[in-house]
Amino acid sequence: MPEQSQRFAGCITQVRGIRVGHAQDRQACTGVTAVLCGSDAVGGVDVRGAAPGTRETDLLRPGNLVLGPNAILLCGGSAYGLAAADGAMRFLRERGVGLDVGVGIVPIVPAAVLFDLACGDAGRFPDGEMGYAACAAALRLPKGEPVIQGREGAGCGATVGKLIPGTRPAFGGIGSASLRVGGATVGAIVAVNAAGDVYHPTTGVWLAGSRLADGTPVYANDILCSGAQASGPMEPKIGITGKVGENTTIGVVATDAKLTKEQCERLAISAHDGYARCIRPAHTQLDGDTVFSVATCRIEDDIPFIALCAAAAEATARAVANAVMAL
Amino acid sequence: MPEQSQRFAGCITQVRGIRVGHAQDRQACTGVTAVLCGSDAVGGVDVRGAAPGTRETDLLRPGNLVLGPNAILLCGGSAYGLAAADGAMRFLRERGVGLDVGVGIVPIVPAAVLFDLACGDAGRFPDGEMGYAACAAALRLPKGEPVIQGREGAGCGATVGKLIPGTRPAFGGIGSASLRVGGATVGAIVAVNAAGDVYHPTTGVWLAGSRLADGTPVYANDILCSGAQASGPMEPKIGITGKVGENTTIGVVATDAKLTKEQCERLAISAHDGYARCIRPAHTQLDGDTVFSVATCRIEDDIPFIALCAAAAEATARAVANAVMAL
Repeated sequence: MPEQSQRFAGCITQVRGIRVGHAQDRQACTGVTAVLCGSDAVGGVDVRGAAPGTRETDLLRPGNLVLGPNAILLCGGSAYGLAAADGAMRFLRERGVGLDVGVGIVPIVPAAVLFDLACGDAGRFPDGEMGYAACAAALRLPKGEPVIQGREGAGCGATVGKLIPGTRPAFGGIGSASLRVGGATVGAIVAVNAAGDVYHPTTGVWLAGSRLADGTPVYANDILCSGAQASGPMEPKIGITGKVGENTTIGVVATDAKLTKEQCERLAISAHDGYARCIRPAHTQLDGDTVFSVATCRIEDDIPFIALCAAAAEATARAVANAVMAL
Repeated sequence: MPEQSQRFAGCITQVRGIRVGHAQDRQACTGVTAVLCGSDAVGGVDVRGAAPGTRETDLLRPGNLVLGPNAILLCGGSAYGLAAADGAMRFLRERGVGLDVGVGIVPIVPAAVLFDLACGDAGRFPDGEMGYAACAAALRLPKGEPVIQGREGAGCGATVGKLIPGTRPAFGGIGSASLRVGGATVGAIVAVNAAGDVYHPTTGVWLAGSRLADGTPVYANDILCSGAQASGPMEPKIGITGKVGENTTIGVVATDAKLTKEQCERLAISAHDGYARCIRPAHTQLDGDTVFSVATCRIEDDIPFIALCAAAAEATARAVANAVMAL
């Protein structure tokens, strides 16, 4: 990491109505980050990577019945990690948060996973207990306090820079950032586990990714663009046991402005531009890159929607950079 | 434009099997760029902006019958400009290029338009004649020769930086770039008419966009992210008559490598990351940002697909920058 890297300010927890908590198994190098959204949030999603692992994304599409999520889970553990949402549903049901279906409530908990099985113990995954614990941690963190960034929660076993054989990946992690947009706030939280390398969104400086054994960056994107061979699974070299072969960057962009479900989808689309500005290459066939969006609708200010979208891309880019600058 | 800007090398015409021609009405400030792909191309498309104007995009989706386009048209004239494809179809039919349907042939000509009515004569649009002329120009240009960049073809009436009231937009244009990826070439051509400003993809330096009357850049994205009001239609100030209110960046990414239709769609998805790296904000609700992809399948080299995707993003970013650096 270059010395000049300074972490961007703000955190998604500064979005009114959003609470965030981590839970992890440090020995297994995996974890969960829960984003609690309350009872009246509107949501969307945009899946752009070719290798996604998700749950409850279909209901978020415009036109479908449910307006938004009660919580969103970012999970390690590859597809196994989707089980963490079971625990989040239990946590929310115990507190009476969920869609009223007459005979009870059904908490709405979309989730996405990243592949971190190569890090730590490949036989242990986030489960319902861990999803429950992440939600409980979110309520313990005082409102508006920043959540811990780096190798926490869903970022616990994350790595970046896994495309060039014979090079070493770097640790990824989870990052967050937020911006004030008029009277509203737009924030993002991203678990960065990209196949590609991470660059600074403003200066274009390389921040983290594939290195040679002596620590020299190899600039994987430049090598790829010249046609050099990309790797399949490769031997990891940074204290990770097992194979590193899979990837995925997953995140949530949130605002306390009032948005429709259609606008939430556009907000998620814009947020992916934050991935594109920082991760090279992003959205590959080896990544399941996904962004959830949520509007808690606490602010009635007449903020131009395009400003919220611009801020969504910016906050997401900063969150990606923070994820690796927090280490 | 900063002095340090140096145009990136290469052109989409260096992709084997791709010919490109422009036709324009300079007085009306509108035009057409035709990308001829031959008879055996495979194609895809990804529409990411919220205000697109397109033709024959549905057939390009994976699973649908036709494998690819015979030509792709990038057109000014807003939705009126889609008429240019009629002329391209006539041009191709006269030369026996098209889908064999037993009783004749049907040339496959997907097209996308940008809004340039505010520039020049708002009552004159690209038509079949202009589409025909652009195809003819493509055949006149010797194979592999670079096509003219800047205010040509579909870039003739293009502008950028139209989001901050009281500021002046800059001219956009059409740009192209290409990279050698192993034994293959990946090239892009983009007509840049974005609502947002254009930045250098490597250094992050602002290249073109909204300025004050004295020429000072206003950094529209930063203003938007702070929540300042975005404009609707605004008075243009750079010699354009009429109102400037609409936008859209449209392009083609092409390779001579062999790809499936599914891979072509992924290639178009990757190319949008090139927009995201250079245009801030990109993919807004005021832009109809679209990328077509085409594989001419002339090269049998075993090039990793992820390298082609990385190059698609890179070539597209360079083409966007070239569009404004060519002026």
